[in-house]
Amino acid sequence: MDRLEQQLKFIIEVDKLKSIIRQNYLADGSRKEDDADHSWHLALMCAILAEYANEEIDLLRTMKMLLIHDLVEIDAGDTYAYDTTGAEQSKRERELAAADRIFKLLPEDQAAELRALWDEFEENSTAEAKFASVLDRLQPFLLNMASNGRSWKEHGVTKSQVMGRNMNNHEGSKVLSDYQYKMILQEVKKGNLIDE
Amino acid sequence: MDRLEQQLKFIIEVDKLKSIIRQNYLADGSRKEDDADHSWHLALMCAILAEYANEEIDLLRTMKMLLIHDLVEIDAGDTYAYDTTGAEQSKRERELAAADRIFKLLPEDQAAELRALWDEFEENSTAEAKFASVLDRLQPFLLNMASNGRSWKEHGVTKSQVMGRNMNNHEGSKVLSDYQYKMILQEVKKGNLIDE
Repeated sequence: MDRLEQQLKFIIEVDKLKSIIRQNYLADGSRKEDDADHSWHLALMCAILAEYANEEIDLLRTMKMLLIHDLVEIDAGDTYAYDTTGAEQSKRERELAAADRIFKLLPEDQAAELRALWDEFEENSTAEAKFASVLDRLQPFLLNMASNGRSWKEHGVTKSQVMGRNMNNHEGSKVLSDYQYKMILQEVKKGNLIDE
Repeated sequence: MDRLEQQLKFIIEVDKLKSIIRQNYLADGSRKEDDADHSWHLALMCAILAEYANEEIDLLRTMKMLLIHDLVEIDAGDTYAYDTTGAEQSKRERELAAADRIFKLLPEDQAAELRALWDEFEENSTAEAKFASVLDRLQPFLLNMASNGRSWKEHGVTKSQVMGRNMNNHEGSKVLSDYQYKMILQEVKKGNLIDE
């Protein structure tokens, strides 16, 4: 029963992901999204959009990766993609400490599996990690489009910031990267992104 | 591009799942959980607890099933597990109409795949569906335990109601069903569930 108790302890601990609030709004603009909402959306997007990965991906591994990729934010908090306060610099350290604590709540074999998946996501070197990263950047982009650029406007985000953030998306998905590029131009035209 | 546009339309439509509020609270009692939070939690629980399914399950299929099992509530709303207002009676009809609308936003092949997964969950006849159902009932139970029976107390939920709702859990997982039975007795002892 020890094993099950460890697993249930982890399951209750990760409930805290639902209280980590992101900067982007839901599509209808009604509130900001939480990290669990975001992770659910990504896993489902992955099931729907996997055909656009440049290389064939292991769907189960990629979905698991997306379900756990933000767990470290339970301790480390959410750092906004277009953060200019310097929090980005200490982010890696905080997230590593969080990964050490959170995954180790699980039995050893599962702790190792999920930690390896998180490391893989962070290293961004496999086809699965690259595709997962594309989705992680595309999802808030789509929600911003749907809510008329609401969080972009709140933060005065520019076209070149969005271009910079998404410049490597073609490594994971040429199709989704090409689509997004067109949409960036459209959002600039609409005035939702600043063209400096 | 038509295909991608259909897929993205679905992806934005299902964002509404984040605005469907359930009756149970987060583990820390801070707020009620939304359906996307819940679906994320279930998919991750499935990855962690799959070893306790009575029969070996296809993990990818089961996780996909859990990610989409509540999408119909976007149109049909959440019906509380211990509902006594009779909403349960019209629930099936409302959910069928919702499934017809929502899954059909997708390209035909994907609409058919997800609809079949949802039907399978509802019919509860495969090992995957039975295990998914166990998790769907266990998760709010665990959150209720963690929040000292908060939503049970709000609704005056009794031991026999919880026993009734979970009486078929052994069909999906004997281990988790046995664990839950012990916990029900514990929660009654604590006064979190009414022993009528």
